[in-house]
Amino acid sequence: MAETSVSNSRRRVLSGMRPTGKLHLGNYMGALYNWVRLQDQYDCFFFIADWHALTTDYANPGNVKEKCFEVALDFLAGGLDPEKCVIFRQSHVPEHASLHLLFSMFTPLGWLERVPTYKDQQEQLREKDLATYGFLGYPLLQAADILLYKPDFVPVGQDQVAHVELTREVARRFNQLYDSRWSEAIAQAESDKERIKAEVSANSLIELTFPEPQALLTPSPKLPGLDGRKMSKSYGNTLMLNESEADIRAKLKTMVTDPARVRRTDPGNPDVCPVFDLHKVFSPAEKQAEVREGCTTAGIGCIQCKGWLADNVVAELAPIQERRAKYEANPHLVTEILEAGAARAHAKAAASMKDALVALGME
Amino acid sequence: MAETSVSNSRRRVLSGMRPTGKLHLGNYMGALYNWVRLQDQYDCFFFIADWHALTTDYANPGNVKEKCFEVALDFLAGGLDPEKCVIFRQSHVPEHASLHLLFSMFTPLGWLERVPTYKDQQEQLREKDLATYGFLGYPLLQAADILLYKPDFVPVGQDQVAHVELTREVARRFNQLYDSRWSEAIAQAESDKERIKAEVSANSLIELTFPEPQALLTPSPKLPGLDGRKMSKSYGNTLMLNESEADIRAKLKTMVTDPARVRRTDPGNPDVCPVFDLHKVFSPAEKQAEVREGCTTAGIGCIQCKGWLADNVVAELAPIQERRAKYEANPHLVTEILEAGAARAHAKAAASMKDALVALGME
Repeated sequence: MAETSVSNSRRRVLSGMRPTGKLHLGNYMGALYNWVRLQDQYDCFFFIADWHALTTDYANPGNVKEKCFEVALDFLAGGLDPEKCVIFRQSHVPEHASLHLLFSMFTPLGWLERVPTYKDQQEQLREKDLATYGFLGYPLLQAADILLYKPDFVPVGQDQVAHVELTREVARRFNQLYDSRWSEAIAQAESDKERIKAEVSANSLIELTFPEPQALLTPSPKLPGLDGRKMSKSYGNTLMLNESEADIRAKLKTMVTDPARVRRTDPGNPDVCPVFDLHKVFSPAEKQAEVREGCTTAGIGCIQCKGWLADNVVAELAPIQERRAKYEANPHLVTEILEAGAARAHAKAAASMKDALVALGME
Repeated sequence: MAETSVSNSRRRVLSGMRPTGKLHLGNYMGALYNWVRLQDQYDCFFFIADWHALTTDYANPGNVKEKCFEVALDFLAGGLDPEKCVIFRQSHVPEHASLHLLFSMFTPLGWLERVPTYKDQQEQLREKDLATYGFLGYPLLQAADILLYKPDFVPVGQDQVAHVELTREVARRFNQLYDSRWSEAIAQAESDKERIKAEVSANSLIELTFPEPQALLTPSPKLPGLDGRKMSKSYGNTLMLNESEADIRAKLKTMVTDPARVRRTDPGNPDVCPVFDLHKVFSPAEKQAEVREGCTTAGIGCIQCKGWLADNVVAELAPIQERRAKYEANPHLVTEILEAGAARAHAKAAASMKDALVALGME
């Protein structure tokens, strides 16, 4: 889309998160923290991907409704402001399923079989049955999730870039097959060179049915859990967003450190210490310098270092937990925000779906 | 479902047809004629399968909206009565896509790859691109189409029996995975024998989330086209429901007959004559006997035989064309009937979808 055409309106961003239940610090720093910053600059849609919860866990989905509620609570606690952005559950907007079905009609099986995460996840989640029609199709569901809102940007980590690329291919295929503005632009070309030029300018100048979104690579610091591995519910090594101060302090005390620093008098190496990785996220620069100096000279012990970290984590979480308490005391507020969000999302999604059906000749 | 539990309400029937545009005599005798009879005995839902039109023809779907209108017009002309049955477009009820998506999560790819029509159609429609995600999934979309309305019966031809069987498997898998009534019935069993008994009675006695429908094998006479092959738009050998009397007579005059009857004086064999196949559908028994007698003795010529057939086809189509004229003069009636039908279908479909989401823990 040309710069001029959006000068009067903010660019749009869409992102989603699976309803895993209460969020931990890894979820927060990996996505939510960025979203809170994005809502001030962009027209943002954030959704809870409840259909996606079933792609890898159809047999034991647990209480998805409750998990969605917990995630919404943490979205709000974390700082998403329903006055600034749209928060909703994917399954509350039926067009996600409808556009997915529409896209399925012209999407080659090979495109889906070649998505890198398809084979990767089958390798990694061997204990789960992933040989389902839905698991194969979930990147296509993501394409529908995204394109319904015609966003300019999709904030993703590096591992999701291939999904945004598939989304762009799906948009392009739709436009080429059904958007008469595209075919008119191409038809006027009299040589291959002109045709390529026309394709490029159709993509950038015409408001096609589905503009191609860009991946917005967002910083997502590697956040170690208490055992030094990536923080993840399945490892049981998390600090939750609603963790009490006492629990934060107690859990951090057990966190693994530089294994070479056996005695208090041994100097440590912050560059291999998971606790220092957390300092890099939660402590200000001067405190990080103080930790490095104290650790490498054995001037401070690990307990003291972890105490400083706990202070900063507690400080980071204080406003989050304060907001959480407000919403926990008034759970109907969360439900109302999700309902209002679904209504706003539905208005946008229904308009996109209508455009698609008209282009296709179905309406 | 036990006999007693439905004694106060009619059993339900669901069926659908792809929007191929105006219907021909083959479409009429193959499905619509039966539907008109069924609407007096059953609680009937008949839908225009517009999403399915895209599974085999995404690249050139044509004007699907107009084709749906034409099919609806022919449904009404053919005798479907909106006071007696529900007529609607599949895409107007969003739950078809939603339940399809839900089912996709637990449906093994292998179930879909093994549906006999999957390989068959890829063989038969070599000129079309059927290597799409949507084409693989279309029997699952049919399962959703059917189960949303929890019908007792699905009228089908022999070639569709495998699809109803898949639908039953999908229903069973859903109930086994998510319906606590099913698992409670099974849990009480103390031996394999009891477990099997419990499974059978759960299927027949409990009102499970998705009761398994039965295929209702309906008579569908082989209807030859003008060239003797199966009547089909793609062969250009059809008589349309709205064919004028003059065209019916002219076209039937060109219809192929017993090739061995070369001269007027040769006796013919009605058992190998496509014209006689049409007599068997449209002419009363005594006229059929007269034709057989006249043909085998060379007492009548083919022109006379075809004239008699034309009389009966014209008579069959007269009331159909009369109704068609009424709706053609008031096209808004058709639109209104489709809208009212979608609203009635949606009420039922939304309730089924809600049941499914509650069972799953999503609502």
